[in-house]
Amino acid sequence: MSGQPLKIAVAGLGTVGAGVLKLLSQQAQILEQRCGRKVVVTAVSARDRSKDRGVDLSAVRWFDDPVAMAGAPDIDVFVELIGGSDGAAKAAVETALETGKHVVTANKALLANHGTALAERAEGRGLSLAFEAAVAGGIPVIKALREGLAGNRVTEVHGILNGTCNYILTEMRTTGRAFADVLAEAQTLGYAEADPSFDIDGVDAAHKLAVLTSVAFGCPVDFASVHVEGIRHISAVDMAYAEELGYRIKLLGIARLTRLGVEQRVHPCMVPKDAPIAAVDGVFNAVVAQGDFVDRVWLVGRGAGAGPTASAVVADIVDVARGRSTPTFGVPAGQFARLEPSPMEARTGAYYVRLMVVDRPGVIAEVAAALRDHNVSMESFLQRGRAPGEAVPVVLTTHDTDEASMQRALAAISAQAAVLEPPRMIRIEQF
Amino acid sequence: MSGQPLKIAVAGLGTVGAGVLKLLSQQAQILEQRCGRKVVVTAVSARDRSKDRGVDLSAVRWFDDPVAMAGAPDIDVFVELIGGSDGAAKAAVETALETGKHVVTANKALLANHGTALAERAEGRGLSLAFEAAVAGGIPVIKALREGLAGNRVTEVHGILNGTCNYILTEMRTTGRAFADVLAEAQTLGYAEADPSFDIDGVDAAHKLAVLTSVAFGCPVDFASVHVEGIRHISAVDMAYAEELGYRIKLLGIARLTRLGVEQRVHPCMVPKDAPIAAVDGVFNAVVAQGDFVDRVWLVGRGAGAGPTASAVVADIVDVARGRSTPTFGVPAGQFARLEPSPMEARTGAYYVRLMVVDRPGVIAEVAAALRDHNVSMESFLQRGRAPGEAVPVVLTTHDTDEASMQRALAAISAQAAVLEPPRMIRIEQF
Repeated sequence: MSGQPLKIAVAGLGTVGAGVLKLLSQQAQILEQRCGRKVVVTAVSARDRSKDRGVDLSAVRWFDDPVAMAGAPDIDVFVELIGGSDGAAKAAVETALETGKHVVTANKALLANHGTALAERAEGRGLSLAFEAAVAGGIPVIKALREGLAGNRVTEVHGILNGTCNYILTEMRTTGRAFADVLAEAQTLGYAEADPSFDIDGVDAAHKLAVLTSVAFGCPVDFASVHVEGIRHISAVDMAYAEELGYRIKLLGIARLTRLGVEQRVHPCMVPKDAPIAAVDGVFNAVVAQGDFVDRVWLVGRGAGAGPTASAVVADIVDVARGRSTPTFGVPAGQFARLEPSPMEARTGAYYVRLMVVDRPGVIAEVAAALRDHNVSMESFLQRGRAPGEAVPVVLTTHDTDEASMQRALAAISAQAAVLEPPRMIRIEQF
Repeated sequence: MSGQPLKIAVAGLGTVGAGVLKLLSQQAQILEQRCGRKVVVTAVSARDRSKDRGVDLSAVRWFDDPVAMAGAPDIDVFVELIGGSDGAAKAAVETALETGKHVVTANKALLANHGTALAERAEGRGLSLAFEAAVAGGIPVIKALREGLAGNRVTEVHGILNGTCNYILTEMRTTGRAFADVLAEAQTLGYAEADPSFDIDGVDAAHKLAVLTSVAFGCPVDFASVHVEGIRHISAVDMAYAEELGYRIKLLGIARLTRLGVEQRVHPCMVPKDAPIAAVDGVFNAVVAQGDFVDRVWLVGRGAGAGPTASAVVADIVDVARGRSTPTFGVPAGQFARLEPSPMEARTGAYYVRLMVVDRPGVIAEVAAALRDHNVSMESFLQRGRAPGEAVPVVLTTHDTDEASMQRALAAISAQAAVLEPPRMIRIEQF
């Protein structure tokens, strides 16, 4: 096949699709050198045929139906940029693989939900299913984990996987503004979607984490086992307390090999201010991997946007053009490690808790007793100002404890008469 | 070839060589999954046959002469861990390529001096010449640049490429101690060699930069054109002034495409305290690449040591085992861009200058006049304390100017009677 032009079909011509077409056109010369052959877009598919995408598509076959394009002859690589875990994206990818095309996709929802099955399908036919763009945008994290750290037993991977959340949290911290206020601004600026729930509720980060987990540990993709919490409940008050306690609040995705199996969780974390990941602000993403030989490796860059995402999509195309193939998730799907999900209740670490209590003698003693009764040891305690008989915020942090004990203690505290609102809890992660 | 065991010969069994053998043995199972075949060490070569290296070598052929091993039959990959730009390392690598073996090496000196010729030799025979371990140890920077950012025109790459220097500079900053003192301690701890000149004079970083430059820009390796300065002249006084001015001192390697060609330089830099690279301390390395589509990508991790270096060597072995091949420096040597070296005199940026002057009226006016006469504009000026008639340190920073003007101004200032010591200059880099 080498020497022959590589024929590409692109499904989905939104921001990323247009970026891919622009990159392929603008860098044609260096791509030919890097690939050892020309890369030619021969077909595209999108809803709106009339829209100007800044690239000349007159010589390219147009398909209204991406599935029909996926099944068409004379295509080497099907680039799926439609999005969504099912529907047209899934049907088109399956058709492409069935009819012998390599697939390059940016679709984390598809991979999170159907990654193992699709990997089996691709590997059964000796095809590549590449997805660098699905996680952390332009940062080559999949390649780094799957190939660069191939000599390691990876024991942990964590990161900032959603730029929208990181932007919102950074703005809240630096301006002191409230979540809703910053979210509205992010929507105006185009950093957050009109319906932002996928991002701010942690689902997007969880999709990416499930994919990273499989690549890191060589196990099936198991999105259903990811514990997911978003950032809606993070308040300006928590931001201020975090600062005071020496922490930054980040939405992290964390996957760890534990003695019970694989722990996968996405939730807001307090990380020490001087931890490298605390300094990754705004729309930037970061992925940190821990391997037994390499120790810790950090990768940081832009996790979204037309340019960075196109960069990742094209890196995958270059791999295919060069004939560089790798099992989808590093290890062949038939040889995946069968690891149990490690339940969230087994998470061990410190906790930050904010309570709104009636300011009267004995309240703190009641809270402390509830913690003690559930074997949770308090590390610090903070009450600013006095307002006898009124509501005041009280903040505490714990020593390392397990999630199950902490949840029982929180339930007991919630039930106390002097505790006026549900306690706010944020897990503290030391890296 | 796939399915058959991949037969490895390892030349050089020092710390890294022993680490590679340990990794290959300890991770045999995951490597077989990732490679799709077994990886077997069939031959080794080192000076001392009797030394215990913690791995069983009884079933392995032993060669006293690495060149003989390189030419022996029944070897697929020759792993060169001897070191040195010429001598046995070069002869063995050439022999291996001539007799049809893929080569994996950690030897930056060899690549910096003979990279282009070796790449031509390897590519002419369809062989891999892989060197992930030669730059930034365990961090997969070569793979990231050459494959992960293959869709980009890279316009700049810079980084902390020598862990010994970064350790010394970090210790100087955090303890306030002098260079010689910290160097001696680093030698005791094994972070610096008995003869530390390769590290502290910037040669090692320059070797690595020359290799990175070729991968980043697809041009011949041109070590001779790297401007190199080390860290011997960095004093505790400069450290303190840097802190006061809001900077950190780092030994950086910087390669840039300029309108004149390729700029390559290694020298101490002042970088703003809040620049991400300022936070990379101790023995850690970092590489930052700027691509036209991906924007900026940071990679950080351990740049040396048995484990991280072995991780990089084995990543290259896995590539060979999988049949993943890439032109040595990303673009075939026959298609390298012919770029002129951009001379150091054309460097543009700000400068920090420390003078030791006689404290008498008019001295500062003379210094300022020398700067003005050479079109260098002063940005800030600092003199602590007074000691009329005696020597006092004076520190100034400039606005952006070109290196040629700055050097002329420094020569003029040096010649002034009131200036008692050669001026100390550190370039300021804004990232």
